Amino acid sequence: MGYLEFDTTGRGFDALDEEDCLALLAARGVGRVALTMEAVPVVFPVNYHFIEGAIAFLTGEGTKLRAAVNNAVVAFQVDDIDPVTRTGWSVFALGTARVLSEPSDLAWAKTLPLDPWAPGDKSNVVRVIPEFVSGRRITAPGTETDGRT
Amino acid sequence: MGYLEFDTTGRGFDALDEEDCLALLAARGVGRVALTMEAVPVVFPVNYHFIEGAIAFLTGEGTKLRAAVNNAVVAFQVDDIDPVTRTGWSVFALGTARVLSEPSDLAWAKTLPLDPWAPGDKSNVVRVIPEFVSGRRITAPGTETDGRT
Repeated sequence: MGYLEFDTTGRGFDALDEEDCLALLAARGVGRVALTMEAVPVVFPVNYHFIEGAIAFLTGEGTKLRAAVNNAVVAFQVDDIDPVTRTGWSVFALGTARVLSEPSDLAWAKTLPLDPWAPGDKSNVVRVIPEFVSGRRITAPGTETDGRT
Repeated sequence: MGYLEFDTTGRGFDALDEEDCLALLAARGVGRVALTMEAVPVVFPVNYHFIEGAIAFLTGEGTKLRAAVNNAVVAFQVDDIDPVTRTGWSVFALGTARVLSEPSDLAWAKTLPLDPWAPGDKSNVVRVIPEFVSGRRITAPGTETDGRT
């Protein structure tokens, strides 16, 4: 994973441990999903909810995206980066996406405060259980940090 | 492209035209690159500069990422989304990435105010000329908009 092989030394860089990554995932509500579709990478923002170790978001019915996302390994990325200082954090997760169809899963999904990022019919609930997470925090040069959130 | 097939109707949704997308690309400086690496999608934040119709960013020497990004079709995504109202915009671009090596290209790159998002040796300049762009803006329900930036 090249993402992990990015330089982990240097001022102002903290690798985040899994606990921190999951806490940051849980604290945000807008992220980005990336997957390979028709041989090209796509990435799109989603409103999501992270609960019980799973990322859940909505997607539309009948789109190629809906078909492509089901059973695909997808990347999920969340960050909070100050555009001026360019400091902040980014968390990356990988997992297999499932469009929920079992009654028990759909009952679970109905308990979540999900809403689509873009308006329209987004009746499919997609669940991604991260199998891999990594993250990093960039602080301004000279800033002391203990690597925690 | 499933991204384009997302619902384009509904309150508060504006598709952005190419001119708007490129203007938004030029106005931001932190984005995300997604590509397929070793059969899995990855997405990572980059500081970038958009100039003369090209996205330029830095990446490290000798990483698998550097090898994977060269000559690959990559997705580039930039957004500005309010985490509370979940309104904002997102721009998506696709293009072939090139790690610059020609003297004339490197001379061009040296004129850019590029800095890496994460500290460390990031001596490779990657250039992506978007071959496809799309974007959308989500406004709060009832908000009037003319779809412009």
